[in-house]
Amino acid sequence: MKLPVSTEWVLHCATTLAQLEPRSAASAAQLAQYFDLPAPYLAKQLQALVKAGLFTATTGPRGGFRLARPAAAITLLEIVEAVDGTSAPYECREIRQRGRGALPPEECRHTCVLAARMADAHEAWRRSLAGVTLAEVLAALPPSAPSRTRRLLFGSGVT
Amino acid sequence: MKLPVSTEWVLHCATTLAQLEPRSAASAAQLAQYFDLPAPYLAKQLQALVKAGLFTATTGPRGGFRLARPAAAITLLEIVEAVDGTSAPYECREIRQRGRGALPPEECRHTCVLAARMADAHEAWRRSLAGVTLAEVLAALPPSAPSRTRRLLFGSGVT
Repeated sequence: MKLPVSTEWVLHCATTLAQLEPRSAASAAQLAQYFDLPAPYLAKQLQALVKAGLFTATTGPRGGFRLARPAAAITLLEIVEAVDGTSAPYECREIRQRGRGALPPEECRHTCVLAARMADAHEAWRRSLAGVTLAEVLAALPPSAPSRTRRLLFGSGVT
Repeated sequence: MKLPVSTEWVLHCATTLAQLEPRSAASAAQLAQYFDLPAPYLAKQLQALVKAGLFTATTGPRGGFRLARPAAAITLLEIVEAVDGTSAPYECREIRQRGRGALPPEECRHTCVLAARMADAHEAWRRSLAGVTLAEVLAALPPSAPSRTRRLLFGSGVT
């Protein structure tokens, strides 16, 4: 059970965008340089967040990505599911209805108890991530983080 | 984020073994036939549960697999982690320490807040599954389930 490597990328990029001035945007190239990530593949992941309605993208010399909503209205669950999808890790293929022990259909009207408990666990995971907003992540950073982030993201003199 | 297909197999096989008479055992071939599963691959998965200390395996004509502990002392988490391992789905590769925005090591002594919240979610998932025993799964089945299971698992006249 693995989340894509890009999950870390988009969580950090979203946290970075949450530290920008209003109306400011960061390009995929700037974010890729900031975290030393492969720009084309990162751009593809960032587009997934646009598609999910979490980021907006603008073109032009000062264009790029920004949050589509206030940081307090974007949860970690939304970000993770934007790149990994919403399907649950446990797949019930109804083996209870197969083979010599196959249960008749009329005994399978309810979800299998094992599938139900696995779904409960996935819901616990989702609830945990749905309970954390980007604003809360920002609040855990040092007070100097946003100005540092903006300086290094946009500054040209840093090597 | 996907669990192996065999997760469903081992959960159902463990539930099946929990319905046997004391000292009774079921072979990989019997379990494979019961659920119409590929016997060699199922046997490999069942061995993983032996290795995890959840099943015992005996050889001989009446040999096979049985639970190593009472059903009330085996949780769904133990079964799932026996086949999928215990590593968390989110991997933090410390991209906060890379690229133009790299944080100095002295600012990274604590776990990244994003990694910490992802770990919280995984713990919520684990807690949910650790809270369900095989005995509780059995209690949710119809009262006739154990005798039916034993009859179809060991009976020779069923087609």
